[in-house]
Amino acid sequence: MTMPGPIDFYFDFSSPYAYLGSHVIGPVAEKHGRAVVWHPFMLGIAMQGEKTFPLTQYPLKGDYSRMDFDRTARYHKIPFVMPADFPKLTLGASRGFLWISREDPEKAVEFAKNVFAAYFVSGKDISDIAIVADIAEEVGLDRAAFMGAVQADEIKAEFKSSVEETVFKKKVFGAPFFIVDGERFWGADRVGQLDEWLTRGGW
Amino acid sequence: MTMPGPIDFYFDFSSPYAYLGSHVIGPVAEKHGRAVVWHPFMLGIAMQGEKTFPLTQYPLKGDYSRMDFDRTARYHKIPFVMPADFPKLTLGASRGFLWISREDPEKAVEFAKNVFAAYFVSGKDISDIAIVADIAEEVGLDRAAFMGAVQADEIKAEFKSSVEETVFKKKVFGAPFFIVDGERFWGADRVGQLDEWLTRGGW
Repeated sequence: MTMPGPIDFYFDFSSPYAYLGSHVIGPVAEKHGRAVVWHPFMLGIAMQGEKTFPLTQYPLKGDYSRMDFDRTARYHKIPFVMPADFPKLTLGASRGFLWISREDPEKAVEFAKNVFAAYFVSGKDISDIAIVADIAEEVGLDRAAFMGAVQADEIKAEFKSSVEETVFKKKVFGAPFFIVDGERFWGADRVGQLDEWLTRGGW
Repeated sequence: MTMPGPIDFYFDFSSPYAYLGSHVIGPVAEKHGRAVVWHPFMLGIAMQGEKTFPLTQYPLKGDYSRMDFDRTARYHKIPFVMPADFPKLTLGASRGFLWISREDPEKAVEFAKNVFAAYFVSGKDISDIAIVADIAEEVGLDRAAFMGAVQADEIKAEFKSSVEETVFKKKVFGAPFFIVDGERFWGADRVGQLDEWLTRGGW
């Protein structure tokens, strides 16, 4: 018996729908016996190529999106408080994730969940590397090692290359983005179709 | 007993997701005893203000969207063939809809469904007023009267004013867009939440 392939989950720590998607994908993956492989990337890089902007910056779609983040969170019973300062550049958290996942992918996911919650529940400034280091410490990592790693040229280069792979090779243009068995699903609101896709083996 | 309010359905005849949404909203409205009031508008006017573009014109999102139109149509078992020539300016069909709905709103919806199918199933050029007049004739309307109406200044002005009301007052920035009991839902993929909203009376 071959292990079924994982669900690749592409996200930016600053994306509200990616945060919501991170909650929604879990039970679906479990139901189908699929692992979820988390891939932080820089949504801003994709936006440059697409000439798109953070949702809240559109004149009409902005207000709608703020309402919809909140309504969709309540619909799925996910704790959510829209951060006053949005969006954030989350390079440090993303590099940190990459460094942790080298040694311990499960620990990296625990860290990522806490980073999301720090921003979208507690309203903490996750662009501040000291705050991100607090989160690393909370999940049992050495603060000094973490601080050193996220500023190391090697990790910076590795993350840059990973973002390029995500955007230019995998053609991921939004977040959350899921790829499973080669099939691509953009948006927390496509997880229903992803679920059905795995149930039926496509349609 | 008060009649429950209708579901206002805002669409552009050239929008694939609006076409799909027009199929998906019907059974949901019926289940809740709600009428669907169809409102054609010019999505291009909203896009000008938002600085957005037809989905297929984005470098990466474009290819994804074409795949997703088709996959979502198959998911809902809705006949769909992406038109080779996309998008189309559908002023004539929209003005025609408005004129028909003055006398007979149900006939106007029948006409609208046939315009959508002509474009998204049969691949006809619905920017061609002669083709739109064929569709009007098929639903029993007088061709000459229809052709006169869609070119009348009065109908042109009424449609212009209706589009302005939709975009600038109702703040409709995309299609399909649904408003029911004052609650706003953008996208064919929000009809599930709309359904649940009417079931629970909100959350």
